[in-house]
Amino acid sequence: MFIYEKKLQFPVNIRNTNPRLAGIVISQYGGPDGELGASLRYLSQRYSMPWPELKGLLTDIGTEELGHLEMIGAIVHQLTRCLTEEQTRAAGFDAYFVDHTAGVYPTAASGFPWSAGSMQVKGDVLADLAEDMAAEQKARVTYDNILRLSDDPDVNDVIKYLREREIVHYQRFGEGLRLTLDKLDEKNVYAMNPSFP
Amino acid sequence: MFIYEKKLQFPVNIRNTNPRLAGIVISQYGGPDGELGASLRYLSQRYSMPWPELKGLLTDIGTEELGHLEMIGAIVHQLTRCLTEEQTRAAGFDAYFVDHTAGVYPTAASGFPWSAGSMQVKGDVLADLAEDMAAEQKARVTYDNILRLSDDPDVNDVIKYLREREIVHYQRFGEGLRLTLDKLDEKNVYAMNPSFP
Amino acid sequence: MFIYEKKLQFPVNIRNTNPRLAGIVISQYGGPDGELGASLRYLSQRYSMPWPELKGLLTDIGTEELGHLEMIGAIVHQLTRCLTEEQTRAAGFDAYFVDHTAGVYPTAASGFPWSAGSMQVKGDVLADLAEDMAAEQKARVTYDNILRLSDDPDVNDVIKYLREREIVHYQRFGEGLRLTLDKLDEKNVYAMNPSFP
Amino acid sequence: MFIYEKKLQFPVNIRNTNPRLAGIVISQYGGPDGELGASLRYLSQRYSMPWPELKGLLTDIGTEELGHLEMIGAIVHQLTRCLTEEQTRAAGFDAYFVDHTAGVYPTAASGFPWSAGSMQVKGDVLADLAEDMAAEQKARVTYDNILRLSDDPDVNDVIKYLREREIVHYQRFGEGLRLTLDKLDEKNVYAMNPSFP
Amino acid sequence: MFIYEKKLQFPVNIRNTNPRLAGIVISQYGGPDGELGASLRYLSQRYSMPWPELKGLLTDIGTEELGHLEMIGAIVHQLTRCLTEEQTRAAGFDAYFVDHTAGVYPTAASGFPWSAGSMQVKGDVLADLAEDMAAEQKARVTYDNILRLSDDPDVNDVIKYLREREIVHYQRFGEGLRLTLDKLDEKNVYAMNPSFP
Amino acid sequence: MFIYEKKLQFPVNIRNTNPRLAGIVISQYGGPDGELGASLRYLSQRYSMPWPELKGLLTDIGTEELGHLEMIGAIVHQLTRCLTEEQTRAAGFDAYFVDHTAGVYPTAASGFPWSAGSMQVKGDVLADLAEDMAAEQKARVTYDNILRLSDDPDVNDVIKYLREREIVHYQRFGEGLRLTLDKLDEKNVYAMNPSFP
Repeated sequence: MFIYEKKLQFPVNIRNTNPRLAGIVISQYGGPDGELGASLRYLSQRYSMPWPELKGLLTDIGTEELGHLEMIGAIVHQLTRCLTEEQTRAAGFDAYFVDHTAGVYPTAASGFPWSAGSMQVKGDVLADLAEDMAAEQKARVTYDNILRLSDDPDVNDVIKYLREREIVHYQRFGEGLRLTLDKLDEKNVYAMNPSFP
Repeated sequence: MFIYEKKLQFPVNIRNTNPRLAGIVISQYGGPDGELGASLRYLSQRYSMPWPELKGLLTDIGTEELGHLEMIGAIVHQLTRCLTEEQTRAAGFDAYFVDHTAGVYPTAASGFPWSAGSMQVKGDVLADLAEDMAAEQKARVTYDNILRLSDDPDVNDVIKYLREREIVHYQRFGEGLRLTLDKLDEKNVYAMNPSFP
Repeated sequence: MFIYEKKLQFPVNIRNTNPRLAGIVISQYGGPDGELGASLRYLSQRYSMPWPELKGLLTDIGTEELGHLEMIGAIVHQLTRCLTEEQTRAAGFDAYFVDHTAGVYPTAASGFPWSAGSMQVKGDVLADLAEDMAAEQKARVTYDNILRLSDDPDVNDVIKYLREREIVHYQRFGEGLRLTLDKLDEKNVYAMNPSFP
Repeated sequence: MFIYEKKLQFPVNIRNTNPRLAGIVISQYGGPDGELGASLRYLSQRYSMPWPELKGLLTDIGTEELGHLEMIGAIVHQLTRCLTEEQTRAAGFDAYFVDHTAGVYPTAASGFPWSAGSMQVKGDVLADLAEDMAAEQKARVTYDNILRLSDDPDVNDVIKYLREREIVHYQRFGEGLRLTLDKLDEKNVYAMNPSFP
Repeated sequence: MFIYEKKLQFPVNIRNTNPRLAGIVISQYGGPDGELGASLRYLSQRYSMPWPELKGLLTDIGTEELGHLEMIGAIVHQLTRCLTEEQTRAAGFDAYFVDHTAGVYPTAASGFPWSAGSMQVKGDVLADLAEDMAAEQKARVTYDNILRLSDDPDVNDVIKYLREREIVHYQRFGEGLRLTLDKLDEKNVYAMNPSFP
Repeated sequence: MFIYEKKLQFPVNIRNTNPRLAGIVISQYGGPDGELGASLRYLSQRYSMPWPELKGLLTDIGTEELGHLEMIGAIVHQLTRCLTEEQTRAAGFDAYFVDHTAGVYPTAASGFPWSAGSMQVKGDVLADLAEDMAAEQKARVTYDNILRLSDDPDVNDVIKYLREREIVHYQRFGEGLRLTLDKLDEKNVYAMNPSFP
C-alpha cells in the first residue's frame, strides 16, 4: 500500500503563467512516454517478476515515478492557475481549456488521452526489462525536448532534475538485466529466455 | 510524494488457480470503472480544487485507491501464477495470455486497454465531485457483478471489503459536495456553479 | 422510432465566419461531455431502467439532446460555410480542415474522435442516474468555457440557451434519483443498491 | 429536431434468453458498421451537402437509422432481461456483464467501444456518398453474419427486415450519386470532384 | 514477400523547412484516409478475395501504396530535417515535437495516432471493394485539401502526382467491381451478394 | 519503393481448419507486439536515423517484417478458409466473425484494433534503438505463447521460423546500438544522448 507524504520529491515554484508551455509539459503527465505510463508499467510488471530483487526494483522506481507524476501535475497547475481571460484563448491551449478548464488531465500534448496501449506488461522478465529500458530512454528524450521548447528557468530546473532521475533509472534497469542474465545463463548473450525450448 | 509500505491494505490469499475469473476481476484493474481510473481521477482533480479540505479528501482517497489497485493486481496474479498448460488455453483467457502471459496488464475484461477517455478532470469543483460520486457508484456495481460471477470465497472476501470502501468513499464525496454548496451559496440547491454569471 | 421535424429547437443564425471558434464549439458535438455522448447515454440506459417513469425521462431527455446535437452542428457549419482560403489555414483549424474540409465531424476540440469509452451504461439504476447527473454538470462547464472563449453574440445566445437546458436536465435527473430512493428504501440515504445483499 | 414516437419501426418480440447471441447482435449497436455509426454519419454529413435533395436524403436515412439503433437495442435487451445467474456466466458474455450488467452499451462484439474513428465526414459530396454506399454494404454483411450465427427465428425476422432496409439505402445513395454526377458534369465518369483544378 | 528498391516512386526534393506544413502533410502518413490505411487495407483484404484477378489487383495497389507511404514520410522528413530552435516552437508543431522530435510518426494532423478502426476488412468481395472505392475518394479529398493549404511548389508537385494515382486506383477498383458483378450475376444491379439467400 | 515477389519468405501450408487458433495467431498480425507494428516502426524510424548504416538496417528489417506480416495473414487465412457453419460459431471466434467474416483484419487477439499508440518514433537514435530491441523481445514472447497455445505442427513450424528471425533482429539492433555508442562517445556507457548538454 501507499502512504502520502505531503511534500514534493523536488520543489516546484513557478512564477510565470504560461498556458502554452503547460500544454507541452503535460505530455509527461499523460503522454506516451510520461510519468503515468512509467509508474503504472513498473507497478504492474512487478507481480510476474521471478525474483525479489526485481520486484523490489520495480516497486521502488514505480513509487518514485508516482511522485514525479505529482511534480509534473504541479508544474502544469502552477503554469495555469492565474490565467487571464486572454491567456485562456492562447493558441494551443484553448482546445484543452474548453474541456478541462485549468484542471490537470492525463493527456498527451497532442490531445490524445493516455492509453494503456502505450505500455506493455509481457509477463517475461527479459521482455519487460527491455521495455523498461526503452521507456526510460524515451522519457529522457521528452525531457530533452521540453528543455528545447521552454525558456522558463523555474520549469527547467525541475525538468533537469527529472531527466537525471530517468538516467539513473535506466542504469538500474540495466543492472536488473545483468542480474537476470547471470541468473538465467551467463552465456545467453543475446538475452533470449531459455525457459522455452 | 508517495511512500511504499510493503503490505496490502487488506490481505489477499487465493488458493485456487482460476484464469477465467482472473479475466473478469482484471476489469477493476484496468476497466472503465476500476481502481486505476479512480486513483488517477482523484489525484489529478485535486490540483484545481478550491479548498484545502477538498484537496486533502481527494489525496486521501486517491492514495487509498492506489492500494486497492495493488490488491486487485494481487488477486489477478494469485489466480494465474500456477497455470497448467491446459489452463492457459481456457476460453476467455487465451486471448489475454498470448499478449501478456501471466502478467498483470491494465485492461478491461473486454480486452480494451485502459484509456483516460473513461475519466474526466473538468477543473470545476461541482462537476468534478459529481464525476467522483458517479465513479464510486459504478465501481460498486462492478464489485456487485464480480460477486455474482465468482464463487471463490478467497476472492469474494477481498471484493466485499473493496465494495464497502467504495460506499464509504461515496459518502465522503457527498460530504465534500455539501461542504461545497455551503461555501458557494446555501440556496444553490441545484448545484450550479455561481462563479459564471 | 424518431420523426424529424425540419426546424431547430432554438434558432441558429451566425453571421460571422470564425473557424477557430468552430474548432472549439465542436467539442460539444463530439467531445467527452458533448451532446452526442449525452443523447446516446440516455437513449441506451433506458432499456435497463426498472420503472416506466425513468424510461420516459431518459427517452425525453435523450431525444431532446439529439436536437441539441443538431444545433451544435449548425453552429459549426455556419461558422465555417464561407471560408476564405486564408481562413482555412487558421491556426487550430488547419489540422481539422485537412481531414474534414468544412464538414461536421464528431470530434473533441483536441482532435480526439468521439469514443463510447467516455460514457457508461452500467445497468444499475443508481449508478446510471449518478452518471447522468455528472454528465449534465460536465456539459454545463463546457458551455461555461465556450462562453469564456467566445465573443460572438450570435453563438453565445445559443450556447446560453443550451446551458440552461443542462441545468434543467440535472434537476430532472435529481428528481429521478429521489423517486428511485423512495421506491428502493427511504432510509437508503447513501444510495447503495439494496438488491445485492 | 427530433420527435419520439413510442413504437418501434418494426416489432421486436424475443421469447428466449440468449446472452451469447446478445453479445453478437450488439455489434450492430456499437460495432464498426452498426446503426450508431450509420445514423451519426448521415446526420453529420448533411450539413456540408451542396443540394437540398441530398440534405433531405441524409436526414431521412439518418433518422430512420436512429430507429434501427433502437430496434437493435431492444433485441439485446430482450435477449438478456431475464438472465439466470448461470446465464450471466456464459462464455462470451461474462466480460460484458461485469462492466455493464444487462444494460445496453454501444460496443462491438469484440468489446471495443464505438469510436467515431470508424466513420468519416469528408465535407466533399462524392467522397461522402462513396463512404455511405460502402457503409451500407458493410452493414449488410454484418446482418448476413448474424443470420449465419443465429438460429433464433424471433431475432432473425427482425434482422432480415433491417438487412432489407440497408439494401434500399444503398440504392438510394446510388441515386444520390447519379444525381450528383449529373449536376457536376455528365462526363465525369470516374467521379472526381471537378471543383479543384 | 517484399523487396525494397532504393528509390522513391516519384522524386521528393523539398528545399524549404516548414514544420507547420509537415504537421498537415503527415495526415497522409497516419491519418484516417492516408497511405498507411490504404496499403494495409488492400494487403489485408486480398486473402479473402474469391478470384485471382482481385487478389492481384489488391496486391498491386497495396504494394504501390507502401511506396506512397514512403514518399509522404520523405516529405515530412525533408520539411523538418533542418529545424532551427525557433521553428521547433511553431504553433501546431510543438505538440508533435515534444513527443517525436523530428521523427516521422504515423499520426493524423489532429494528433490522433493511426488506428485500424479507420479501415475495415469485411471478408465480402462487394463490401470490400465499396470500402476501397470510398477510401480512394477520401484520399483524393485529403490531397485536394493539402493543395489548398500549401503554397510550396516542391511539396505540391509530389502531392499532385499522388492525387492522380488515387484517381487511377479508384478506376481500377471500379473495374474490379464490374468484373465481380459480371461473375456474380449480371442482373445484380444493386450489388447485393447473392451468396446469402 | 517496394516490389512484390509472389512467394512467401517461408512456406505456409496449414491443413486443418481451426478458427480458435486463428483468433490467437492474429495477435501477431494486428496485436501490440505484432508484425504490423514491427514493420511500421522500423520503416518510420529510418528517416531520422543519423547514419546510412542504421537507415539501411531499419529498411532491411522493416521490409522483412512486411513479409512476416504476409505470412501471419496466410496462417490466419488458411486456418479459416473452409469454415463449416458450426465452426463460425466457435467460442472466441464468433465475435470476430460477425464483423470480419473470414477476412484478415489487423486486430489483437483481444479484439482491440491495431493502434499506432503501441509504437513510438522518438527521433533520437538511442531511444529508437532501445524501443526496437524491446519490440523484438516482446514479439519473441508472443511467439513463445502461440507455441504454448497451439498443437498444430503446420502452424508451429512457421511460428518457430518467425521466432528465430526475431532473435536475429534483436542481435542486429544490438549491433546497431554498439555502433551508435562507438560513434557518439565510447565512454557514454549509459547510452545517454550527448547532443543535449
